[in-house]
Amino acid sequence: MPEFNFASDNTAAVAPRVMEALVAANVGRAMPYGADDWSRRLTERMSEVFERRVAVFPVSTGSAANGLTLSALTRPYGVVFCHEKAHVHVDECAGPEFFTGGSKVVPLAGAAGRIDPAALRAAIEAAREERSISNSALSLTNLTEAGTCYTPDALAELTDIAHRSGMGVHLDGARFANAVAALGCTPAEASWKAGVDILAFGGTKNGCLAAEALVVFDPEGEAAAALPFLRHRGGQIFSKARYFAAQFLAYLEDGAWLADARHANREAARLAAGLGALPEVELLEQVEGNEIFLTLPTEAAERLKAAGFGFYDKPAPGQPGRSGLRLVLAFDSDPAASDALLEVLRQMSAIRAVG
Amino acid sequence: MPEFNFASDNTAAVAPRVMEALVAANVGRAMPYGADDWSRRLTERMSEVFERRVAVFPVSTGSAANGLTLSALTRPYGVVFCHEKAHVHVDECAGPEFFTGGSKVVPLAGAAGRIDPAALRAAIEAAREERSISNSALSLTNLTEAGTCYTPDALAELTDIAHRSGMGVHLDGARFANAVAALGCTPAEASWKAGVDILAFGGTKNGCLAAEALVVFDPEGEAAAALPFLRHRGGQIFSKARYFAAQFLAYLEDGAWLADARHANREAARLAAGLGALPEVELLEQVEGNEIFLTLPTEAAERLKAAGFGFYDKPAPGQPGRSGLRLVLAFDSDPAASDALLEVLRQMSAIRAVG
Amino acid sequence: MPEFNFASDNTAAVAPRVMEALVAANVGRAMPYGADDWSRRLTERMSEVFERRVAVFPVSTGSAANGLTLSALTRPYGVVFCHEKAHVHVDECAGPEFFTGGSKVVPLAGAAGRIDPAALRAAIEAAREERSISNSALSLTNLTEAGTCYTPDALAELTDIAHRSGMGVHLDGARFANAVAALGCTPAEASWKAGVDILAFGGTKNGCLAAEALVVFDPEGEAAAALPFLRHRGGQIFSKARYFAAQFLAYLEDGAWLADARHANREAARLAAGLGALPEVELLEQVEGNEIFLTLPTEAAERLKAAGFGFYDKPAPGQPGRSGLRLVLAFDSDPAASDALLEVLRQMSAIRAVG
Amino acid sequence: MPEFNFASDNTAAVAPRVMEALVAANVGRAMPYGADDWSRRLTERMSEVFERRVAVFPVSTGSAANGLTLSALTRPYGVVFCHEKAHVHVDECAGPEFFTGGSKVVPLAGAAGRIDPAALRAAIEAAREERSISNSALSLTNLTEAGTCYTPDALAELTDIAHRSGMGVHLDGARFANAVAALGCTPAEASWKAGVDILAFGGTKNGCLAAEALVVFDPEGEAAAALPFLRHRGGQIFSKARYFAAQFLAYLEDGAWLADARHANREAARLAAGLGALPEVELLEQVEGNEIFLTLPTEAAERLKAAGFGFYDKPAPGQPGRSGLRLVLAFDSDPAASDALLEVLRQMSAIRAVG
Repeated sequence: MPEFNFASDNTAAVAPRVMEALVAANVGRAMPYGADDWSRRLTERMSEVFERRVAVFPVSTGSAANGLTLSALTRPYGVVFCHEKAHVHVDECAGPEFFTGGSKVVPLAGAAGRIDPAALRAAIEAAREERSISNSALSLTNLTEAGTCYTPDALAELTDIAHRSGMGVHLDGARFANAVAALGCTPAEASWKAGVDILAFGGTKNGCLAAEALVVFDPEGEAAAALPFLRHRGGQIFSKARYFAAQFLAYLEDGAWLADARHANREAARLAAGLGALPEVELLEQVEGNEIFLTLPTEAAERLKAAGFGFYDKPAPGQPGRSGLRLVLAFDSDPAASDALLEVLRQMSAIRAVG
Repeated sequence: MPEFNFASDNTAAVAPRVMEALVAANVGRAMPYGADDWSRRLTERMSEVFERRVAVFPVSTGSAANGLTLSALTRPYGVVFCHEKAHVHVDECAGPEFFTGGSKVVPLAGAAGRIDPAALRAAIEAAREERSISNSALSLTNLTEAGTCYTPDALAELTDIAHRSGMGVHLDGARFANAVAALGCTPAEASWKAGVDILAFGGTKNGCLAAEALVVFDPEGEAAAALPFLRHRGGQIFSKARYFAAQFLAYLEDGAWLADARHANREAARLAAGLGALPEVELLEQVEGNEIFLTLPTEAAERLKAAGFGFYDKPAPGQPGRSGLRLVLAFDSDPAASDALLEVLRQMSAIRAVG
Repeated sequence: MPEFNFASDNTAAVAPRVMEALVAANVGRAMPYGADDWSRRLTERMSEVFERRVAVFPVSTGSAANGLTLSALTRPYGVVFCHEKAHVHVDECAGPEFFTGGSKVVPLAGAAGRIDPAALRAAIEAAREERSISNSALSLTNLTEAGTCYTPDALAELTDIAHRSGMGVHLDGARFANAVAALGCTPAEASWKAGVDILAFGGTKNGCLAAEALVVFDPEGEAAAALPFLRHRGGQIFSKARYFAAQFLAYLEDGAWLADARHANREAARLAAGLGALPEVELLEQVEGNEIFLTLPTEAAERLKAAGFGFYDKPAPGQPGRSGLRLVLAFDSDPAASDALLEVLRQMSAIRAVG
Repeated sequence: MPEFNFASDNTAAVAPRVMEALVAANVGRAMPYGADDWSRRLTERMSEVFERRVAVFPVSTGSAANGLTLSALTRPYGVVFCHEKAHVHVDECAGPEFFTGGSKVVPLAGAAGRIDPAALRAAIEAAREERSISNSALSLTNLTEAGTCYTPDALAELTDIAHRSGMGVHLDGARFANAVAALGCTPAEASWKAGVDILAFGGTKNGCLAAEALVVFDPEGEAAAALPFLRHRGGQIFSKARYFAAQFLAYLEDGAWLADARHANREAARLAAGLGALPEVELLEQVEGNEIFLTLPTEAAERLKAAGFGFYDKPAPGQPGRSGLRLVLAFDSDPAASDALLEVLRQMSAIRAVG
């Protein structure tokens, strides 16, 4: 384990306030499977945060949150439309196909991690001949997989296309906090006001232990009625549910989740600025949240590793001698780590320049 | 929430040592998805506990543990044989059908929660015409659903039948600790030495927060090779895996899990003895672990509720005026609560006797 | 292949009129997948036969008809309630679990192959805690698996229970013709007027080559809207659909299907009467259609086989020295075959009586 | 229904010899589900045709053949790799996802309907991180979706890549006859000798009524052992199996299937030559089998329709005023129809040239 870990925000520990909440919840008996006070308070709290009555289903992973949401919005003869780099398509070992009972996942192109509305329209038309569009879903991700944001308007453009075709809309919000923090809007504006039907609201990457939640914006609708059964058969109801609710309650308290996300975003922006100033670094995407995608000489990547920095890298396609890196900042990222990373690279540049 | 809660062992809080382990694990960065030190140590520790090299897959619920195990042992054209009261058949909203892709679950009769070997043999023969038995699984539960134990010999008799037919064996060990404590045998004797192929090892009911684990006794076999993929698509790999491993490490340390289970069992035996001495109480099953099944006058059940005791009850079938109750003792059960419960019932009896 | 085959009505050849219709349809080009004149006429014809506008989906096997119907009526978190001897439960290698994406199939008791209404009510109540009853289905079979009939009133009692719980009703009509012929009612009275939502209407056992059809009584409902997609992904739309429609058109023409079924039923009654008169034969069920279930001395079964008769037999449970047989009569059954079979048995009886 | 139908080879009637075989098979009783003489002879015959012992599983549609094959070759955590225009990906309403229990279908690029080997290699490498490649399958199509052929060498290059990764190979042979006829090779050379593990051998498009068959080249292997169960639960075993076998027996007799396919291919080549000589027609793909893909002025397409010709057409992307057409020739295509079609177009050209 490297000392300076930029591999993912999920390498971070649990935020102190969340751990304290777990300790505080650890008193006495509580009825299982969500019939406890913490779970009840969570529904209230989420309804306040989102400015409308919502139904909340805590789950233990983002993949489960995505899969269950998609299974509530589609039928197996529908389609899941998503970005070609979407986690649901690329990183979940066909989890959506599993949870939905075999819906086809149709990947769509789009710059900067955002689905191109024209591509969505075309894909819906193409699928219409063979599939039930009204039993299909649009799956969006914010922060996107490219570390960029959809603005509420950009979301609304896509969700409007989906709704006009009778589809439901899923938002993979593994980094919803970073998106809302980046956009400076309200959680409602980044979700249901922009046409999202169910949000897979992530807490784990931003300071929780294992807390994701389906936030269903129509608590009287069909999806909300189906979800208690879907999550039951999916192995996602917790006997000691209080500890999942307690994490989220601490996460949401006093806007702590957004403050923490702002820290991560700010550090990412600062590090990106430093990296962008280096002649041998190329930033691949606009840094809008807490993720930085870049290429640099493979030699530099090796030097960083040798110095104890952790990150995911692979050869940059079509650029021999260069590597592609992802650097992720977290709620607890120490500015000194970023400075140290920049310093290693600057020294290399300096030596080269002299050489 | 009643003050004296006998509804389930899962109403208990987290054991202090487990919560302390979570706090202790909350330092620094750790690589995600099991590539952390705690997870590595867990495999070592489990291998010691079970006296052989095992593969370990932590998951967040018992239903997920059962479903994933069954999906690794069967093909959809196989069968899952289980007791007619098994949790996998009755309480998981068709979770096994979901995880296995549609295997038929075939319930078997048997007294005291234990599958009758003759019933198993007959069911295998009957299924053989239409199904692939070698792609089927036997699912056992210990503690059984009736609160009784299978002895290692009783397990071996059933697992031998299964293995001779080429089937794999799953053990639902939601209360494995209580079973091992009751049997006074080693964990190995209650699992692989008795023919179990994969144990769904429960920690949550006996003091963990949310920690169950698949313990695979052939770490080089097909099931172990399939499980990383099965749990991935099933939404059961945790980015902050260290906290799941840390729970189990604390649970297993110095035999704490068995000491705690012994306490629960002992309290159940003591309470059962007290209940059995009351003329109006009928114990329905031998109390071998931490669960008591009984009937008593509905009036007495109501009196207990009024006095603040919590438990699940329903009308006793065919016995008007009587209710069926389940009382479950936990690692932290206070003897005073049992005494108070007995006292309420004794007073009722005394009044009646006088009346 | 024995000369006198009572093994199943599906051992019969294709009825001449059906084969002639295939030959007659074999002219010129026709658009595929049901966009042909025969398919259009079939919808008209079925609507006449059932006295209301229906939607028709021809498929190639009864198992596919059952599986697709159940997949249109349930969601995976619902239940399929059926008789414990139902084909969907016993004989389809978990086909309903496959087609429905993992619904649990719950078998119900009931004498003479008919579901006991009390058992259905109890099972619904028991399932209600964990499952979505309004996404569940009741699956009935007429002729039943015991060769008996449900009367329209008996059907209505069960379908009423189902509908009051929001469930849909499937009728496995592999031998629907024999049931309608036996009941002397109209096809409508034996289906939608008695509360059936979708009939899996069998033609194959009564003279077709491979022709079963889903007859959907609400052609504007959700199930009818879903079925084009469900059968497509299920591999059940035929490019040369005209030949499936043509079979059914010939089958239904001038009531031929009912005349043929009456012949089979009549021969079964006659054979059963002969068998019932033999001292060593025990008829197990009332013979109401074209199937006879009986036990007789194993020696007699062997003698019949030696004489060239074909049937399915197995040891009669708990009756050493006796075998259980099923004899099935078909649209083309030759009375001489039945007479010959009776003659073999009478000779055995006579010899014994003398001995 | 237009008089001159080029929409698909599946608009053709059944070949007289196949219909005669059905009539000839229509005598006497036969045991169901493949335990009949025709089915036994089919296995012998197929083994001769393919020059090795094979297992044969007749099914009723090409989609069922493809889905069942893929379910026998993959596990749900594997991948199905196919061409981006493959029928299994585009035209089966997620049938492969259904039959395989949720395998992801990964489309690959490649010119002229053939998978680019480099694209296959790259996709395998990309999938390797998250999926079980040894539980994956390569799905090929010959004739391809572009009407071109894979040569045996081209097949072998791809199947070798698959086998080196432990994958199984499926060949969608809906037009296998046209491919073999075009290649002038043996059926063995176009299948197992080129590395195909299971062939979905189509008969319907080339003169059968509804006859497709899985031809499994390792009759002792795992896939062959699984298929009886998979097709049973998939609703694809036929009680009157003799009529499916009889179709194939007639189809294969004396090489009739190849003679008929050669006719269709020859007519396609002749029509394509005529079309290619017209200034306003652009042939989109090399015509190697019985399919022609072309663009022409939409006005010409309309003229053809008005003259009674049938075909599928749509606007040519990016070419306003032009339409894309597919013309398919069949075993019974009348040269006069092609001549008539060419004549209509030539007249238009002539008028234009004058104009």
